[in-house]
Amino acid sequence: MSNPDQAPILLEQTLTPLSELDPLTRKVLVQLPPRAAADNRADVDSVRHVLEQQVGPMQIPLSLMHSIPALCSTREPLTATLAPTGCCWQLIELEQGDTTEEHYGLAVDIGTTTIVVYLIDMHSGAVLQRAADFNGQIPFGEDILSRIRHAAEPSGLIELQHAIRDTLNRLIDRVCIPPLTPTRISAVSIGANTTMVHLLLGLDPVSISRSPYIPVVNAPGILTAQDIGLGINPLAPVYCLPSVGSFIGGDIIAGVLVSSMHLQDEISLFVDIGTNGEIVMGNREWLVACAGAAGPALEGGVTTHGMRAEAGAVDRVSLDPVSGEVRYSTIGQTPACGICGSGLVDILAELFLHEIIDRAAHFATGQSHFIVVPAAESTTGQDIIVTQADIDNLMATKGAVNAALDVLLESVGCSWQDIHRFYAAGAFGQYLPLESAITIGLYPDLPRSSMIRLGNSSGEGARQVLLSQAKRKEAETLAATITYFELNANPTFMDKFKSSKFLPHTDIDRYPSVKARLQARRTAAQSGQRA
Amino acid sequence: MSNPDQAPILLEQTLTPLSELDPLTRKVLVQLPPRAAADNRADVDSVRHVLEQQVGPMQIPLSLMHSIPALCSTREPLTATLAPTGCCWQLIELEQGDTTEEHYGLAVDIGTTTIVVYLIDMHSGAVLQRAADFNGQIPFGEDILSRIRHAAEPSGLIELQHAIRDTLNRLIDRVCIPPLTPTRISAVSIGANTTMVHLLLGLDPVSISRSPYIPVVNAPGILTAQDIGLGINPLAPVYCLPSVGSFIGGDIIAGVLVSSMHLQDEISLFVDIGTNGEIVMGNREWLVACAGAAGPALEGGVTTHGMRAEAGAVDRVSLDPVSGEVRYSTIGQTPACGICGSGLVDILAELFLHEIIDRAAHFATGQSHFIVVPAAESTTGQDIIVTQADIDNLMATKGAVNAALDVLLESVGCSWQDIHRFYAAGAFGQYLPLESAITIGLYPDLPRSSMIRLGNSSGEGARQVLLSQAKRKEAETLAATITYFELNANPTFMDKFKSSKFLPHTDIDRYPSVKARLQARRTAAQSGQRA
Repeated sequence: MSNPDQAPILLEQTLTPLSELDPLTRKVLVQLPPRAAADNRADVDSVRHVLEQQVGPMQIPLSLMHSIPALCSTREPLTATLAPTGCCWQLIELEQGDTTEEHYGLAVDIGTTTIVVYLIDMHSGAVLQRAADFNGQIPFGEDILSRIRHAAEPSGLIELQHAIRDTLNRLIDRVCIPPLTPTRISAVSIGANTTMVHLLLGLDPVSISRSPYIPVVNAPGILTAQDIGLGINPLAPVYCLPSVGSFIGGDIIAGVLVSSMHLQDEISLFVDIGTNGEIVMGNREWLVACAGAAGPALEGGVTTHGMRAEAGAVDRVSLDPVSGEVRYSTIGQTPACGICGSGLVDILAELFLHEIIDRAAHFATGQSHFIVVPAAESTTGQDIIVTQADIDNLMATKGAVNAALDVLLESVGCSWQDIHRFYAAGAFGQYLPLESAITIGLYPDLPRSSMIRLGNSSGEGARQVLLSQAKRKEAETLAATITYFELNANPTFMDKFKSSKFLPHTDIDRYPSVKARLQARRTAAQSGQRA
Repeated sequence: MSNPDQAPILLEQTLTPLSELDPLTRKVLVQLPPRAAADNRADVDSVRHVLEQQVGPMQIPLSLMHSIPALCSTREPLTATLAPTGCCWQLIELEQGDTTEEHYGLAVDIGTTTIVVYLIDMHSGAVLQRAADFNGQIPFGEDILSRIRHAAEPSGLIELQHAIRDTLNRLIDRVCIPPLTPTRISAVSIGANTTMVHLLLGLDPVSISRSPYIPVVNAPGILTAQDIGLGINPLAPVYCLPSVGSFIGGDIIAGVLVSSMHLQDEISLFVDIGTNGEIVMGNREWLVACAGAAGPALEGGVTTHGMRAEAGAVDRVSLDPVSGEVRYSTIGQTPACGICGSGLVDILAELFLHEIIDRAAHFATGQSHFIVVPAAESTTGQDIIVTQADIDNLMATKGAVNAALDVLLESVGCSWQDIHRFYAAGAFGQYLPLESAITIGLYPDLPRSSMIRLGNSSGEGARQVLLSQAKRKEAETLAATITYFELNANPTFMDKFKSSKFLPHTDIDRYPSVKARLQARRTAAQSGQRA
C-alpha cells in the first residue's frame, strides 16, 4: 500500500485511447431562433424544443426553470449540459456562450484504505489533475469487516457515509484549480468495492458479511450528486461501476475492463491483492472469479514489524549473493521503522533463494527470526525482524491465491499451462517486486512480457466509463457474465489450501524460472564455497 | 363565485366514463422467484429485473433502495407503484402484499380565488372525496395582477408559493379520511391558470403581465411532489395541464378537453367567465382563443353592494310581472347583505325586460339607482341598490365578451350563425342564471339543448388527465393547436367593444328568443294596463 500522495498514477499503457468519446454527460450548443412577433412560446419550452430537435426527449428540472428567461433574453448562443436519466436526457446546466470545450468530470477510485480522484477533461479525455487521501472511514476500522460492524452501531452508517463523502469533497476541492469551481463538474464515475459503494450510498452493508452474502444492490444505476452529498453540480449523474456480488465489486469490473482480458481468445489471469484479494480468470467466452480476505499479511496489521507503505517503511530487500549481507531501501530514504508489503515479499523470496528457509518456508537452522534492519539503524532502537509467524502469515496468503487459482482452473476444466497472460491490479500490483512475487509463488511464472501491471485500474476503468457509453455497457455485460465461486464453503479449496504451503508451489515445475534461479544460486554458492 | 364549501361538484354529465384507465402512476404486482442456492442477485436488482420484464426500463431511486431487502426477505408478493419520468418508469413505492386496488391520486383545480381538491380512486376512476377552500394567496391580492405585483416584492414570490402550497396541503389532509394517509397518494394533476402554475412552482410571473406577455413555461412537464412541497409521497408525479400562453392556461385546456368541442365537426363556443374571462371557439379542425380581465363586474369588488357568493348574498332576483315588486333569494336563506354575480345578472335582465332600463342600459326615467332590498330587510340597515355605474360595469363585461366573440368570428371568416354549441365553464358558468345571461347578451341565444354547463371543468379535466395517458396527449395537442388572439393590441376589438353596449346586442336579431320575450312582455303589460 503506497502513501496516498504517491498513489499510482495511471500507467501510460492503460490510458487506453478511446476511439470515440461519448461521455456520461453531453454539452450541446443551443441557438434559439430570433423571436418572431407572433411567437408566444415560453422560454423553457423553446429551450426544450431546440434540445429535443437535436438530441431527443428532454426533461427540464424545476430548479433550472427559474434562470432560463434571463439566459434567453438576448438570444445569444447558450450551452446546455445534458445527463442521461436512463431512457432520455435531463438538462442539468444552461450557460451563456459556447462552453462546449469546458466539460469536466471525475473518475474516482474508492478503496477501503485510499481514495483517489481524477479530474477528467471530458472534451479531450485527458486526466487534468489527481488527488489522493486515506479513506476518512479508517478511524472507524481498518478493514471492511470492522467497517461493516461499525455500520451496525447507532449512527454508524451515517458516520461512515459522511466520512467517505467528506474525503471525496476534500479531494474534489483539491483537483479544482481556480478558476475551475466544483459546481462546474457535471459527471462522476466510481470504481469501488461493493461495501464502499453501499457506505457511500448510505445503504446497510450488513448482508454483505452474512450468509448468503447478498448485497442490497449490485447495479445502483445512475444517481445524482445531491443524492450522496457531493459538492459539485447537484444534478450531476453519479455512475457506480456495477458489482458481481458482495466480494467482486465495481473496482474489479473496472480492472477487467481495463485489462481487455474479456476480449481475448487466450485465457488470462487477473489478480488484485489489496486489503482483500480478488482473482478473475477467463477469456472472451467465459469469466470466473473468486475472492477472500488476503491482505493482512501484506498490510501493516499482523506482521511483527509490519506497517503501511509510508515514509521509513522497508520496501525493497536483497541479500548479498556472497556475503549474505542484507541490503534494503526505505520509502522516502528515511531511517527504517518497519516493513511494508513489498519489502516482506522481497525478504521471503531472498530467504528462500538463499535457503535460509526451506521449501516449506521454515527456518532451516531452527532460528526463530531474521534481522532485516539492526537496532543501530532503526528509528525504534530495536532490531526490525521477520519472524516464523510473519512468514507463516504471508505463506497463508500465497497459499490461498494458489488454492483459489486451482479451484477456478478445475471449475472450468483448464490447467495452469492454459494461462497466457497475467494482470496485476491495484496498489500492491503496482509496487510488488515482480520477480520476488514469482519466486514465492504469489504470481505465476509466465514470460515476463505476458505479465502486465495495470496500475490503478479501478480509477482507469472509472475514467473509461465516464468517457464512453460503450464502455459502460461493456462493464454491465461483464458484471452479468462473471461467474462467482464461493471459496469459503468449498471443501476442495480447503484441501488445496492446506497442501499449497510450499515455495514457490507444491508443484515446482509450474515455476521453471524459479527452479532455474534456485539451481543457479546453489551452483554459484557451491562454486563460491569451493573458491 | 360560490362559497368554496359549495364549490361546484363535477356534473354527472361531465364525469366522462373513460374507456380505458391508464393513470399517471401504475400499480404493479411484483412476485420475485424463490431464491435459488446459486442466486446471488441483489434484492434491488431482482426487483428492477422483474419490473423491467413487466413494464420496461426502470429507475429505482436511492431513497427506496434502503427498504427493499426487508421487503424481499419473505418472497411474498409486493406491489410497486410506478411513475413516468418522461421516457421510462421510476419506482416510487414498494409495499407488502397486493395493494393494486388501493391506488389514489388527486385532481386539483387551482383558481385565483378558490382551490378544489378531488381525491380520485385511480383503480376505478371514481371521485372519493372533495374539499374546497379560498386560495390562501387572497390576503396578498384579490386578482391576478395584484398577485403578480406582490411576487415582485422581497420574499413575495416565496410567500405566494407557500400560501398556495399550504392551502393545498390543508385540503389534502381533509380529503384523506383515515385510514388513508396523504403519503399513500401517488399522483397529482392540476388545472390552473398560467399565473397560478407559476406561483405554485415558485417561478417569477412578472413576464406574464408585461409585453410581450411570455410566461416562463407553458408545459412544465412532470414534476414531483417534493419539488413543490406537497405532503404526499415525495416522489409522486405532479402534472400541470399545459398552457397556451400567459392568458390561456391549463384550466382552459382542461375545460376544452372536457367539452370535447375539439372532436366535433360543428363549431362550438366555450366561455369561462371568472376573475378573468376566456373564450375558445372552434371545432376538430381549428381552435382560436382570446382572453381579458372580465370579472370585476361579477365579483364583489366594483359593484356598490357587490359581494362574493357567500351567505347573505342576493343570488336570484325577479320582478313581479304585474306589480313590479322585487322578489329575491339569498345564499343560505339568511338576511341580505349584498349582491353576488348571479343576482346582478338577474337584476340587469329584469330591469331590461320591464323596460326600467332601455336597450342602452340607461335608466329610462332618469333615476340614479334601483332598490333591490329595502333597508328594513337588509343586515346593513341600508337599501341594497344597483346604480347606473354598476350597470355600466356589467355592460362593459358583456360588451367585451360580444366584441371578443366578433373578433374571433372575423378572424376565422365565420358568422355567429355558425355557432352550434355553447359551453359555460367555471363557477360562474355553473351558477349564472341561463335565461338572464342570454337576456343581457352575455351568452348567445342558442337552442337551450345546445347550451351546456361544464361545472368545474378545470377539476374534471385534471381528473381525466390523471386517469388517462391518451387524455394527457390530447391536452398537449390542444395546447399546441389553439391560436391565441391578443385583444388589447387589436383596434378592431376596441371598435367592436365601443359599439356593443346594447341589450342584448347591437344586432338584436342575434337574440330571437329575447326579442320574442320582450315583445310578449310588452303585450302583457299593455293588456294589463288595458285591464
